[in-house]
Parts: sequence; structure tokens; C-alpha cells
Amino acid sequence: MRVTAYAAPAAGQPLAPITIERREVGPNDVLIAIEYAGICHSDIHTVNGDWGPQPFPVVPGHEIVGLVTEVGSDVSRHQVGDRVGVGCMVNSCGECTNCRRGDEQYCLEGMVGTYAATDRDGTTTQGGYSTHVVVDADYVLSVPQGLDPAAAAPLLCAGITTYAPLRHWNAGPGKKVAIVGLGGLGHMGVKIAHALGAEVTVLSQSLKKQEDGLRLGADHYFATSDPSTFEQLAGRFDLIVNTVSAKIDLDAYLGLLAVDGTLVNVGAPAEPLSVNVFSLIGARRSFAGSMIGGIALTQEMLDFCAEHGIGAEVEVISADQVNEAYERVLASDVRYRFVIDTATLA
Amino acid sequence: MRVTAYAAPAAGQPLAPITIERREVGPNDVLIAIEYAGICHSDIHTVNGDWGPQPFPVVPGHEIVGLVTEVGSDVSRHQVGDRVGVGCMVNSCGECTNCRRGDEQYCLEGMVGTYAATDRDGTTTQGGYSTHVVVDADYVLSVPQGLDPAAAAPLLCAGITTYAPLRHWNAGPGKKVAIVGLGGLGHMGVKIAHALGAEVTVLSQSLKKQEDGLRLGADHYFATSDPSTFEQLAGRFDLIVNTVSAKIDLDAYLGLLAVDGTLVNVGAPAEPLSVNVFSLIGARRSFAGSMIGGIALTQEMLDFCAEHGIGAEVEVISADQVNEAYERVLASDVRYRFVIDTATLA
Repeated sequence: MRVTAYAAPAAGQPLAPITIERREVGPNDVLIAIEYAGICHSDIHTVNGDWGPQPFPVVPGHEIVGLVTEVGSDVSRHQVGDRVGVGCMVNSCGECTNCRRGDEQYCLEGMVGTYAATDRDGTTTQGGYSTHVVVDADYVLSVPQGLDPAAAAPLLCAGITTYAPLRHWNAGPGKKVAIVGLGGLGHMGVKIAHALGAEVTVLSQSLKKQEDGLRLGADHYFATSDPSTFEQLAGRFDLIVNTVSAKIDLDAYLGLLAVDGTLVNVGAPAEPLSVNVFSLIGARRSFAGSMIGGIALTQEMLDFCAEHGIGAEVEVISADQVNEAYERVLASDVRYRFVIDTATLA
Repeated sequence: MRVTAYAAPAAGQPLAPITIERREVGPNDVLIAIEYAGICHSDIHTVNGDWGPQPFPVVPGHEIVGLVTEVGSDVSRHQVGDRVGVGCMVNSCGECTNCRRGDEQYCLEGMVGTYAATDRDGTTTQGGYSTHVVVDADYVLSVPQGLDPAAAAPLLCAGITTYAPLRHWNAGPGKKVAIVGLGGLGHMGVKIAHALGAEVTVLSQSLKKQEDGLRLGADHYFATSDPSTFEQLAGRFDLIVNTVSAKIDLDAYLGLLAVDGTLVNVGAPAEPLSVNVFSLIGARRSFAGSMIGGIALTQEMLDFCAEHGIGAEVEVISADQVNEAYERVLASDVRYRFVIDTATLA
């Protein structure tokens, strides 16, 4: 099956229309007519070759929402007409300790990314900037009614990436949670942490987006460019979710944690960070990392978001605006996620 | 009350006999006739001025066991004749969140160290290399019958320092625990983790102490100087307790953790460590720190050790051997803790 897509032809080159091949619908597969595909910062890293060489052309996109148009003979969990989503992974071994307990993203054989990855059959995966995609039903999520499909697309990466650490480290009533950075990930973190019942503080470089932050659910908003922030908030938080991939002064942020507090990075800066172990020992603090979430948890997140009326703040664009959108993401000029209307691909 | 002690007269100078003043026994105080005082590596750091300038002379010693010879009018928890212990702290505010929940070591006003610290009355504390000490009863532990007093002394620092993270991060049956370094702290970590029911692996620079490690309770023993160790044990452990204060290749050790595993430092190298965030994100790992333990947990640890017949492996020395013992500690020539018989001070 040949479908229209938008692809990067080579590292660093502008994306352009292309026709790609999707596999036949196998017994456990679902064919999805894509409605919306979110633009994640990691799409840009990948097509720029920041994360190493890879086969081109690359069709990015791992925040996919669409409608089921065909299911394989063994598929019972999805039906034609269902609205479904696909996130950052489309396969894993399914048999290792981590897969078996629902942490497919930590598959010991390596999860299969939604694009630019080698699938278990040896083919290269291609993502959601496309009219259609064929995905193993076990990696397809149900998008609950009541979620706006465009606003739901970013939940598949930005949503689960923040939901997973907030749940794992028990953000909830009585907990003081800080979200570092108010971008695509951060704005989802604020909404979800607030809905979970935590007291939410945004730590952003400046106060430029303060009004937005408070509107999205933050109780407090501080500028990290102001050194007094770090004095004022010393020892305050139970959990800090750092959504910023740039290098930070880890010791300064660890100093904001209470005893037993955890600072979780969901982004990974390219350079290593420096940590003074005293920053941890002095209050039994932890520095941790978290990467998206398992399939069951992703479904839980979608259901939670539907229940609480949570979607991403999106700017819907047409496919031919993708390159301009990339520029604007790099300039932090987006509130808060670009989503491609894939009808404009046809 | 004037008592005999062994003190460092100035930074880096050999310890020598001295007479010091102990305060009058107040209503909530206990006077202890010291029997044994362990030598901790941090004693050496302190008298060498490695951790900054401080008032001299300094009487080190925060692994103290002795007999109660007098109690203040308000003391009910200890009686004359009881065998008791004193660890790394002798006071704290008692009122902050951390003190109130039994984490006095993380007192928000700062715990008062057993020596070289400023007590809440403004005096400078002096430690256990001495015949007697006067300590607030709330910071005095009961040493259960059945514990050899010389072998019990190191439990007050080395014991609780390893017991606390092992308990906090749930070392026990079904858990794979690694102890990095088989010294004063490490050998206690092995004994305690084994008694808690965990599967215990020692990660030591060489296989020199392998026989000891297995005798102390380790199930496995690997040399970290052998690069194949890091391949062989990749993703193996639920918990790693790092007792080594020297700089380590953090990313290599983090790679030994399973999903959700934690590497806890109980020592703090002077220089910051470098960490690649991908080492954490790839398996939701944590890097944490832990410092001794609260008073209630220290009592729990002593009771646990008595129940399981656990003491430190000690070499009992006379007071005039202290300087030689310091040399041997620095040369890692001790199996596994020097303990001063304070009767030799009289």
C-alpha cells in the first residue's frame, strides 16, 4: 500500500512530500487513517542527525491520532471506525521481564521506535507525518470519546512522558511538584500534575509565560534566571520533573528538594551533567530519569486526560508548514505544540 | 568534670593525650563511661582539615559504646549500669519536619555532630576517643545484650550508614543488592544485606578480599578492575550501595542497575561526579545519597544486629596506637575496623 507522507530526504534538509510503502495488514495489525500528527522536538533532533546517522528518507511523527480503517483477523481490541492513537513505540519483544510487567519502553531487546527504527521484521519504521500507518494492535491505544483528536495527539508522547514520572513518584494531594520548563512537555506536566491534585510550581527561565502557566493549572511560577528563586524555594519540593534538555546546574535544582525528594529528567542533554554527591546525601535525595511509559500506562493516561478534560494546547498546521514549524520550535516560538492536520497531505 | 582523651592538636598533626572538660550532667543528660570507640575514615578527614577549618584540639570518635554511670533527673529511658551507644549526632532541633518524623540527621537547623561541631548551647562537641562523655539521653542508644561491645561500636556509624539505605530501598528476599567496596562500611553492608535476605554481590577493585567477602555473607564477588564485570552484570541489580568515597565512573555503575534500580552513595567524593542522563532515562534508574540514619532507625539497626548476631569485624587497639591505625586506614590495611579500648586511656 502506497501512501503520501512528509519526509526528510537527508540529514538537515527540509522536509518534502514523498510516497512511501506501508506493509499489508497482518493478522494482528491495525490500519489507521491518520487525522493528526504532533511535532515533537525529538523529530527535529532525529532529522538533523543529532542522535547519530540513520537511513533516509525519514518520515517523523510519534504523536499520532486517527481512525481505524481495517483490522487483521486476530485483532479484537480495536474495530473499524475506532479513534486510536500511536505513540513513540510500535513494537518490542513482548517476552522480557520489562515487557512482561508493562514497561515495554525498557524492553531488554530494545523497543522499536515509531520512525527511523528497525522493526522486528527488519524493515525501517516510518512515522505519523503521513496519511496512513499500519501498527501492531498491541501498540495501538484507544482515544476515549470527548478528547479533541488534535489536542489528543501530543498526549501520545508529551502526555505520557510527563504522566509516567508524576505517577511513578506519586504526585498527588499534599505533594509539592515543580515542573522545569513550560514547553511542549512542561505544559502537559503542569496540567497533569494539577489534575492529580499536587501543588504545582513552574520553574521557567523567565516570567514571560507566567499568565499561561497559572491558567494551565500552576499554583506558583518562578523565574530560574533570578538567583533568589533558589534561596526562596530551598528544600521545598517532593518532586521536580525537568523537561529541559539543556545542561542545568543540577546541584542548584537538587537543593530545592525536601528530604526524600526526587529530581526526574525526562529529557537528556547531549553533554554529561555534573553532580556534587553532597547535594544528594544531605537529604536522601534522588536524581532519576524516565522515558515515555508502557502501553497500559499510556492507556491509563489517555483515560485520565479524558476524565479531566485535558488535552495539549495546540496550533494546527498544514503539512506544507512543517519546515516553518520546525524553525519556530527551535526558537521556542510555539504555545505549546504544533499538530499537523494530515488531511492537508492528501 | 575533667576527663582524659586523645586529640588532634592541630590540622594534620598526630593525636596525643589531652585532658578535656565534660559538661555537668543536666536533667536530660546521660554520663557514659566509654568502653570502646571505633575509628571511622571521617575522623581522619576531620583532623586533617579535609572538610574545612575548625576549632582545635579535636577529640574524634563517633562510634561509641560504654556504660551509663549517671543519669539526669528527667531521664527514664536509660539507667545506671546500662550498656549504651552514641553515634554521629548528639543533638538536633527536635522540632522541624525532619526531626519530628525521625530523620534527625537531616534536621533543618543542622544536626549536631558528635565532635568538632557547635552544640545548641554554643559549646564545641568532643568525641569518643575519651574515657567519658555526657550526651542528651534522646541521642543515646541502647546496646542490646548479646552484642560484643567492641564489635558493636562500629555499628553506630558504619552499621547505620549501610542499614539505612538497605532498609529505605527495600533490600530483602528476591532483591539483588551490590555493595561497592569492602572496607569498614562495605563489610557491614554485606553482613546486613545478607541478614535482610537479599542476594548480595561485592564489587571490589580486586579479588584480594574475595574469601572474606563470601565468608561475611556475599553470594558473589566481582573485581571492578576487570572490564568484563560491567558487561557480565549489566542490568542486574535492584540496589547498589556505593561505600567508596573516591570518584567513580558513575555511568558504568548505573549500567549495572535493572529498571527502577537505585545506586546510593553513602560516601561523598570531594570532586563532583559526571553523569550521562541517558544512563538514568534508559531504565528509570535513580542515583541517590544517604547519610547515617535517625535515632529510632539506629535503635532498630542495633536490635536487628543483636537478633542476627551481627557485629563489625574489629581489631582492638590501645589509645597510643591511634596514629599508626590512621596510617593503616589510609593504606586500606584494616580488616575491617579499628576500635580503641578506652581503658588504655586511663
